[in-house]
Amino acid sequence: MINKTINRVAIVGGTHGNELTGVYLVKKFEQFSHLIQRPNFETVTLLANPQAVEARKRYIDIDLNRCFKPQDLHNPMLVNVEQGRAKEIAKQIQKWNVDVLIDIHSSTANMGLTLILFNEHPFLLGLVAYLSAMNPAVKVLQNKQSAQESPYLRSLCELGFTLEVGSVPQGVLNAELFQQTEELITMILDYIEHYNHGKKVPIPSALTLYQHSGSIDYPRNEDGEIQAMVHPQLQFKDYEVLNPGEPIFLNFDGSVRSYPGKSAIYPVFINEAAYYEKGIAMCLTAKKTVLLNL
Amino acid sequence: MINKTINRVAIVGGTHGNELTGVYLVKKFEQFSHLIQRPNFETVTLLANPQAVEARKRYIDIDLNRCFKPQDLHNPMLVNVEQGRAKEIAKQIQKWNVDVLIDIHSSTANMGLTLILFNEHPFLLGLVAYLSAMNPAVKVLQNKQSAQESPYLRSLCELGFTLEVGSVPQGVLNAELFQQTEELITMILDYIEHYNHGKKVPIPSALTLYQHSGSIDYPRNEDGEIQAMVHPQLQFKDYEVLNPGEPIFLNFDGSVRSYPGKSAIYPVFINEAAYYEKGIAMCLTAKKTVLLNL
Repeated sequence: MINKTINRVAIVGGTHGNELTGVYLVKKFEQFSHLIQRPNFETVTLLANPQAVEARKRYIDIDLNRCFKPQDLHNPMLVNVEQGRAKEIAKQIQKWNVDVLIDIHSSTANMGLTLILFNEHPFLLGLVAYLSAMNPAVKVLQNKQSAQESPYLRSLCELGFTLEVGSVPQGVLNAELFQQTEELITMILDYIEHYNHGKKVPIPSALTLYQHSGSIDYPRNEDGEIQAMVHPQLQFKDYEVLNPGEPIFLNFDGSVRSYPGKSAIYPVFINEAAYYEKGIAMCLTAKKTVLLNL
Repeated sequence: MINKTINRVAIVGGTHGNELTGVYLVKKFEQFSHLIQRPNFETVTLLANPQAVEARKRYIDIDLNRCFKPQDLHNPMLVNVEQGRAKEIAKQIQKWNVDVLIDIHSSTANMGLTLILFNEHPFLLGLVAYLSAMNPAVKVLQNKQSAQESPYLRSLCELGFTLEVGSVPQGVLNAELFQQTEELITMILDYIEHYNHGKKVPIPSALTLYQHSGSIDYPRNEDGEIQAMVHPQLQFKDYEVLNPGEPIFLNFDGSVRSYPGKSAIYPVFINEAAYYEKGIAMCLTAKKTVLLNL
């Protein structure tokens, strides 16, 4: 593996304005910048959607984290708040010449400390394997969609990834989760410092990851109105196995819907508030162990 | 005590559009109306702020649950979405000639099943004493503010009260809490049926209630920006005693702020998402036991 030096790391928060963990971590790091300074690289911070933060909303016009399709960033017709902001962010990230980008999100689902990867770059695999070995609360979610299919902010950078922490309500700062997230960021920066020095860090030879394979919507009527809730037995059970025939939804009439699939899956983003409007009650993943040779 | 017959009960949900427990309970009761029908009185339902429900927001222009000052309801100059809707609701409640009004809210704080009373009417004291004896998750919060100071929807009706359930994020349906809330509503309607029949129900001779006495804001800088989070030791500890000197906030620099009061209090609405903008990190209450002679 070619050991490319990391010269600049960007920590992004507030891509969604009501996900306060990232918003206030970025504000904290801006106020106490020594926390993110390391001798061998520079760390910059970015509050991605200040207007949405101000309004205490996920977004003003549209979801900023779906605005980073390459052709959209060059389309002068796209001028709403988030489309405009996406272009500014893309220019800034390019100007900074960022090597690693961490986009901090939070979820009402029980995501723990989830790192979402979009490629299998050896640097990222080594990083997440190290982190998940150091902290069992860390989970690795793999989303193999292209930037076209998943035009997220993190796609601005090859070594970009998303950090998704939860469960925490929108518009709420949970101090314990805030501290855990801060510790994880610290661990990431320390890892990069070691990496730049060429120091050996203990990377395990195998990595457990959860590979995104699709999603399930809430049962709805012809008007799109939901007809069921996530079943209490499934609530907060992100990353736990769901077998065919096990309860998945509780209908409002009290009856139960079971998971109709043919094989076991591992749901994540179970009952995420922001996904009701996207037609997603949960995302489905396959649990995999990959052998590393880093 | 004069046993006034209850002829009509109103169940209200969606006063805040992103508090889905009440929204979907009202929709469920409209779909399965036999659940709320009782032989001796009529039950009606109301979705208070359908525009906010549609928008998945607490409110469109202003907080609907602060729009029920008597003079505001007669002020033709007040015409924004919620001011207009408040007038429609007030007319509807009057037209229905409602005797008992239950306004269902939810909170990101750990409020369990809280009944909020605004007066000491013997009917309400008997009801809440019965409910809290039947279900230990039920708490009774007393707010002695006048309709001027607390112009809530429930003030449209002398026997109006607020049900506040949590913890649940805004924009999320938690099936377990939904079921608990539904069971509580069922118990309330059954109690009223017995009451109308003049049947004796087992009402305890003493009632524990938490009397609202004020609130504490987050520490903020001169720009109004919060400088601390609710301390992890206090998070989710609604209705538990807080003694002078115990941790209350965790500053972003890692230092701790302790409760500076001189005597023990019982905080509620700890870290409620909707109250960040209202300057409330938690409400303070005194725990009291009142003897009943009903």
